[in-house]
Amino acid sequence: MKVDKVYMTDIAKQLITSDKLCKQAYEEVITSIRSSVWPKGSNIFTINNSEKNVNGVVPLKENCYIMLEETYNWFREKPLDVLKYEKKKGGPIDVYKEFRDGDTVRRVGLEFETGNISSAHRSMQKLLLGLNRKELDMAIILMPVFELAYYLTDRVTNYEELEPYFENAEGKAFVFIGFNADAFDSSVEIIPKGKDGMSKRSIKKWIQKKD
Amino acid sequence: MKVDKVYMTDIAKQLITSDKLCKQAYEEVITSIRSSVWPKGSNIFTINNSEKNVNGVVPLKENCYIMLEETYNWFREKPLDVLKYEKKKGGPIDVYKEFRDGDTVRRVGLEFETGNISSAHRSMQKLLLGLNRKELDMAIILMPVFELAYYLTDRVTNYEELEPYFENAEGKAFVFIGFNADAFDSSVEIIPKGKDGMSKRSIKKWIQKKD
Repeated sequence: MKVDKVYMTDIAKQLITSDKLCKQAYEEVITSIRSSVWPKGSNIFTINNSEKNVNGVVPLKENCYIMLEETYNWFREKPLDVLKYEKKKGGPIDVYKEFRDGDTVRRVGLEFETGNISSAHRSMQKLLLGLNRKELDMAIILMPVFELAYYLTDRVTNYEELEPYFENAEGKAFVFIGFNADAFDSSVEIIPKGKDGMSKRSIKKWIQKKD
Repeated sequence: MKVDKVYMTDIAKQLITSDKLCKQAYEEVITSIRSSVWPKGSNIFTINNSEKNVNGVVPLKENCYIMLEETYNWFREKPLDVLKYEKKKGGPIDVYKEFRDGDTVRRVGLEFETGNISSAHRSMQKLLLGLNRKELDMAIILMPVFELAYYLTDRVTNYEELEPYFENAEGKAFVFIGFNADAFDSSVEIIPKGKDGMSKRSIKKWIQKKD
């Protein structure tokens, strides 16, 4: 997979340039999304472009999460304290990691969007809430770009669709990443929809870290 | 209908208290939502509470819009310039009015949420974008409270569900209004779903104002 488009707020840009831990967080995410290949065993990510909306999207997310969890030790389903204890509403953040260097800690939250555009707005708001409450130091949303999303499940969010609203995150450390296939080929295997063909695995949940 | 819950950001509170035009905007919205009655010809709004999700929600919105358009001269479907001309993406704001007093103008955008929670997040982001770009001076979202939403179309947004994110609007003039039925009665007429039983009318679109 390749990273096609990136938007960083000014603060995020500054952190990724000058803060070792934030730079590491960004690089781990970039490496994980880039590592996604199709079909399995290939060196690159080739998408079947025989028809609009023909491919599933969940396996893409899964590949990226596996690398984040297993190689880089990110955790899944981290609830924000503000939502869990104060508001008593709202789901957890998809993927989360605390980066440490001596006494310095940087908490980074990531959402990989495979829902529709309004679901992406919700993810963005959740991450903004975490930044506002200083439970997160940096937030990242991963999405396919339009060119790729066209061949994925109908109505999956694309980077360009959320792009008009990126600037609502100015003043916070927020990064939006749009990924794309390396190649398009109508004869390559179609990515199954839903969880078909995905191997079962135990996700590394945040709560397990505490145990 | 009654207004059950209201959240105003600090700036909105200050404007509604001290700015004549913003106060007028708020009062027009409050009066319009309060004027909604059920069944037709009643003095109050009584909801059928015989079963969860039994009532439609579109006619509620319609009644409020009719008053805003016909009594108070608000306009429908106002596109934001930033979305229309710069980003070339995204739909218009539901209802909009420019309040004038001599050289002073206050532009107020309103969304009446009848979609699901993630759709409400999108409305909030759109209004925030308008405020950030100074195309709006104040923004308002109208939603049923949980107690009422329970008897409306499945998954319609309720005030309490969006409430954890209200604080993301701090620093901008934003008002969230939660309305509720005046009474609950299992024998009252059920509100039809969709546009059933609604009279056809021409909405007063923003574009017509320009013609």
